[in-house]
Amino acid sequence: MIVSIRPNSPKEKINHLIKWLDDKNLIVKEFHGNDQCVLGLIGNTKCIDKDMLKSLDIVESVSDMTDTFKASNRKMHPDDSILRLASGEGPLIGGGHFALIAGPCSVESREQLVGIARDVKAAGANFLRGGAFKPRTSPYDFQGMGSAGLELLLEARAETGLPIVTELMYLHNLDEFIEKKIDVIQIGARNTQNYDLLKELGKSTQAPVLLKRGLAGTIKELLMSAEYIMANGNENVILCERGIRTYEQDYARNTLDLSAVPILKNLTHLPVIVDPSHATGRADLVPSMTLAAIAAGADGILVEVHNDPKNALCDGAQSLTPEAFAELSAKIDRLRDALR
Amino acid sequence: MIVSIRPNSPKEKINHLIKWLDDKNLIVKEFHGNDQCVLGLIGNTKCIDKDMLKSLDIVESVSDMTDTFKASNRKMHPDDSILRLASGEGPLIGGGHFALIAGPCSVESREQLVGIARDVKAAGANFLRGGAFKPRTSPYDFQGMGSAGLELLLEARAETGLPIVTELMYLHNLDEFIEKKIDVIQIGARNTQNYDLLKELGKSTQAPVLLKRGLAGTIKELLMSAEYIMANGNENVILCERGIRTYEQDYARNTLDLSAVPILKNLTHLPVIVDPSHATGRADLVPSMTLAAIAAGADGILVEVHNDPKNALCDGAQSLTPEAFAELSAKIDRLRDALR
Amino acid sequence: MIVSIRPNSPKEKINHLIKWLDDKNLIVKEFHGNDQCVLGLIGNTKCIDKDMLKSLDIVESVSDMTDTFKASNRKMHPDDSILRLASGEGPLIGGGHFALIAGPCSVESREQLVGIARDVKAAGANFLRGGAFKPRTSPYDFQGMGSAGLELLLEARAETGLPIVTELMYLHNLDEFIEKKIDVIQIGARNTQNYDLLKELGKSTQAPVLLKRGLAGTIKELLMSAEYIMANGNENVILCERGIRTYEQDYARNTLDLSAVPILKNLTHLPVIVDPSHATGRADLVPSMTLAAIAAGADGILVEVHNDPKNALCDGAQSLTPEAFAELSAKIDRLRDALR
Amino acid sequence: MIVSIRPNSPKEKINHLIKWLDDKNLIVKEFHGNDQCVLGLIGNTKCIDKDMLKSLDIVESVSDMTDTFKASNRKMHPDDSILRLASGEGPLIGGGHFALIAGPCSVESREQLVGIARDVKAAGANFLRGGAFKPRTSPYDFQGMGSAGLELLLEARAETGLPIVTELMYLHNLDEFIEKKIDVIQIGARNTQNYDLLKELGKSTQAPVLLKRGLAGTIKELLMSAEYIMANGNENVILCERGIRTYEQDYARNTLDLSAVPILKNLTHLPVIVDPSHATGRADLVPSMTLAAIAAGADGILVEVHNDPKNALCDGAQSLTPEAFAELSAKIDRLRDALR
Repeated sequence: MIVSIRPNSPKEKINHLIKWLDDKNLIVKEFHGNDQCVLGLIGNTKCIDKDMLKSLDIVESVSDMTDTFKASNRKMHPDDSILRLASGEGPLIGGGHFALIAGPCSVESREQLVGIARDVKAAGANFLRGGAFKPRTSPYDFQGMGSAGLELLLEARAETGLPIVTELMYLHNLDEFIEKKIDVIQIGARNTQNYDLLKELGKSTQAPVLLKRGLAGTIKELLMSAEYIMANGNENVILCERGIRTYEQDYARNTLDLSAVPILKNLTHLPVIVDPSHATGRADLVPSMTLAAIAAGADGILVEVHNDPKNALCDGAQSLTPEAFAELSAKIDRLRDALR
Repeated sequence: MIVSIRPNSPKEKINHLIKWLDDKNLIVKEFHGNDQCVLGLIGNTKCIDKDMLKSLDIVESVSDMTDTFKASNRKMHPDDSILRLASGEGPLIGGGHFALIAGPCSVESREQLVGIARDVKAAGANFLRGGAFKPRTSPYDFQGMGSAGLELLLEARAETGLPIVTELMYLHNLDEFIEKKIDVIQIGARNTQNYDLLKELGKSTQAPVLLKRGLAGTIKELLMSAEYIMANGNENVILCERGIRTYEQDYARNTLDLSAVPILKNLTHLPVIVDPSHATGRADLVPSMTLAAIAAGADGILVEVHNDPKNALCDGAQSLTPEAFAELSAKIDRLRDALR
Repeated sequence: MIVSIRPNSPKEKINHLIKWLDDKNLIVKEFHGNDQCVLGLIGNTKCIDKDMLKSLDIVESVSDMTDTFKASNRKMHPDDSILRLASGEGPLIGGGHFALIAGPCSVESREQLVGIARDVKAAGANFLRGGAFKPRTSPYDFQGMGSAGLELLLEARAETGLPIVTELMYLHNLDEFIEKKIDVIQIGARNTQNYDLLKELGKSTQAPVLLKRGLAGTIKELLMSAEYIMANGNENVILCERGIRTYEQDYARNTLDLSAVPILKNLTHLPVIVDPSHATGRADLVPSMTLAAIAAGADGILVEVHNDPKNALCDGAQSLTPEAFAELSAKIDRLRDALR
Repeated sequence: MIVSIRPNSPKEKINHLIKWLDDKNLIVKEFHGNDQCVLGLIGNTKCIDKDMLKSLDIVESVSDMTDTFKASNRKMHPDDSILRLASGEGPLIGGGHFALIAGPCSVESREQLVGIARDVKAAGANFLRGGAFKPRTSPYDFQGMGSAGLELLLEARAETGLPIVTELMYLHNLDEFIEKKIDVIQIGARNTQNYDLLKELGKSTQAPVLLKRGLAGTIKELLMSAEYIMANGNENVILCERGIRTYEQDYARNTLDLSAVPILKNLTHLPVIVDPSHATGRADLVPSMTLAAIAAGADGILVEVHNDPKNALCDGAQSLTPEAFAELSAKIDRLRDALR
């Protein structure tokens, strides 16, 4: 249920109302915009007398919310959410704050990682990405450097100041992620509906969670997975479109669903970013799909950059060289200017 | 087979070679670029002695072509094709010439059509679209104004000077389309593999054919359908991405596959345009998807505009008002400037 | 609108009602079952006073029909349709009459075709299939034997008595199909929404039309395409599930959608058959998928049989040998007995 | 790598070879059939001298295995695997031993569960299914009875003797499942690629794991997920086809991919069962799809039965009544007889 509060209503009265609703065992989401205040109610709202609510002098309107996604719903929070890192410092994400997240698919060595980190920072990236734990379809394949890879990410952060984005695969690694102050915790497409992980990410951390859409996940499912994190206490969720599985498989790995960007921006207040590297699997398609994603309204881009794509341990075919990334970054700036 | 000719080879010798190949019952596609000449051979090239060809002094290299699409293949025609209307006048399409095609889904009346035509022209459109023959899944539904609708399109063309784009559904209407000098003949998604129509469009006209991707058509199938037209004599084909059928059906009619744009531009020299209106089925998504399509590299946009979307006979929900179109058109200009 | 007539109502009164409805410019479909009579009304039924209809003593009930498919709708014709060939002789199809349609993908030679025809007849087939006109994605590929292939089919029919099933691709061949008394006219998956062909098949013939589901066609679209034929005058339509296009492409050509069989049998009175050969593209999967289709309720099977699959001009990999077909046919009999 | 041993080779020599391979740090899978013995080698087989192996007198042939799935591969284990419960008692699964698994979607109460258990047992079921932990897309929905539900399943088992099949969702419940001797541990479609769970199921138990195909999972992914369990120590995996996500969503929840059954039976030695209830979401389609699955070669069926479908807490629309189940069970018997 959505309760719109009349502008300039006394704070005291609003708080009184909130307390009353809290006592009804409802979760109350407060949104205080510049000239708008909205209370979003989650839970069994049947116990609420709508007419009574409407009759309150501070209440402008009351409407039911039939959408199954609640905390992430833009109706509860009309403005874009602007996420900040747990440290309180560093770049913001959403609401006009653009996240340019670049780095290698896998962390391979100190030299590789720090080198790429410096290159992408110089070219304009404001986040460093890199995988320490890799989801592999085969149990017999190399599964990433693990904790040693996390350490290298910390070193690259220390050297460049770039906050880091890296994937959490296993519940038992969450403590390590928290302890090491991983800035943004990525949840991969195979774990989008791993409710075990999602619930724990809600309970244990306030670090932003970069949640990828499932391999063939619907937009609704992506929102509901965000809801699992938010309902458990962490509202800092970034949604990521990364291509969906379709019948068209001849020329690109997945079908990048860019209409998901404006659709999501319309449904939710959470930031929406795009990963053109995994979506296409082809470095030559990454620049045009990056620009298209931004034109579609994305709040950020997650792009793979490798100093030596041909010898990358993982997904070299989709990695840009640092030079190509620098060129793309300049185009991104021109495009964002034009769209302003 | 692709035969690259050495720069500055004497014309006479090239013609001699072409004649020799013609005599082998091969189709020879000639490409003469600024500093490049390529001969593309279609047919049974096994009869050709490659080593002999390579030994000719005017020949730089010879390579096999295993792709099933031939005439449309960029290897045969490295530069973008630039299409012109059969009249020889009016806007060009492709190779930097942008087609902004706007108008109503269905032709409804003289007043409606001419009014919209004036509005979209004023806002920057260089083509008028409008359906006279409508593909309907139900035989019991209104099937468009038919020939009377074509007449109204001619009037709108006469009034505004905008060349017209309209759909041909039935073979028996082709003569009428030719006689009435329809500028661009559209083939809808249900007819993408109607070889009857495609062959006849190849044989009977040189008017550009705007060929839509099938409802769940692959990129390869789209190229092969273009090939049916080209192999029968008409090389003026415009490819159109219009959304594909996927499992995601909650928020948009189809999934707009924008990576198809750079993929196609890489594979073929034909112009590639995008129809964001049919792809999404939602007017509110059209502006962002239009900008994304252009950022992805599209050579044009096919967009529905209606003066009174709520009362449109067909697909009102996806039609922009003339005002919204004018606003979008201004953004398109800014975006194209930034991407140059 | 569906009007159920009370059992044992006088014929005269029913006819009177039908005449009255006809005069309202409605199409009236009459269904006379053993103990049930139903009148189905197609057209603008808003002009009908439902209460008046209900008050008639011969009327049991009146209900609206919101489904977009009308003539094919089981509500209009509660019993299974039983189709007969235009000759009035030969096997029936539907309502318990099973069609076992076997033969080569392409007609290649007299010897090949007649040989296979004899083999499949001996093994229990009651129809011979074979393609004379072949839909090919490439205009440069062999397009079938054409009219000469039709002649061979006629010879095989003359020799074995098996009625023939063959694909019509082009409108201009329809007269030839009619003249040569092709028993069952097949419409391929690329032409499922070729309304040109469908309309003409409705107007020009009463031969059963075997209509394949589109490459990625919905169940609803298949019914609506049947409707195009039926609304134009030919009610003898056989629906054919032949696999749909999905993301799963590693092990079979298409995904055979067997739940479409009971779904269709529930929605329509038309016979529903299955083509396991094109669906899977693999001969080794054909037997189990044939049995599964029959267990799912199919009214027939369309299966490819070739005397020399390895050297077949087309789709050898999916063709059974005559021996394998004979073995399968015996299993079909046992299965059908068990399901009775 | 696959090493076929000559028939009647002395056991001692075989063991000697196995020891030698073990020492090379390879995993050696031994298959001892009636007249065939095969050693499957997993790991870095490049260190093996193939010619040397071939030259051994007990070795018949040596072949590489390029498939990414190893332990589950039929090449390593030519006969069907026959799984037994950890107790060593009760029904077997696979290799001709049919699993008829029936019961309610959710455990709701003792009365409901025990009643249904008795009914399905009387009708021929040899396993009882019932969900205690329910995967729900919304965190705000009822998530199942949890441990209390498990207790009721134990009671139903005690009363009827039917072994129980129930879903494990969360890693932290695994110990409870083991302690309570859950007979068959089900992994749902959202967890098919939850490698956390899969690894632990491999390490901690020998109970059969019923692994469902992902919501839009490929056949290859299903096998690779089985591989995660098997590579970690538990080879008792049952694969379950449960419908895949496709564009066709009008009449059934998913598209049941029955060709996956013979495809999987060809690729792997593991038992393959089918869940027609979740696949279709419609009780009226369950009987025909059950029979089709069995005709396609399934080793078992997982079907929902509820005493009062209309008031079921979960998925009532897809549940059979006990009466309908009894009728279906009789048909299954007749069908299995006919297919023998």
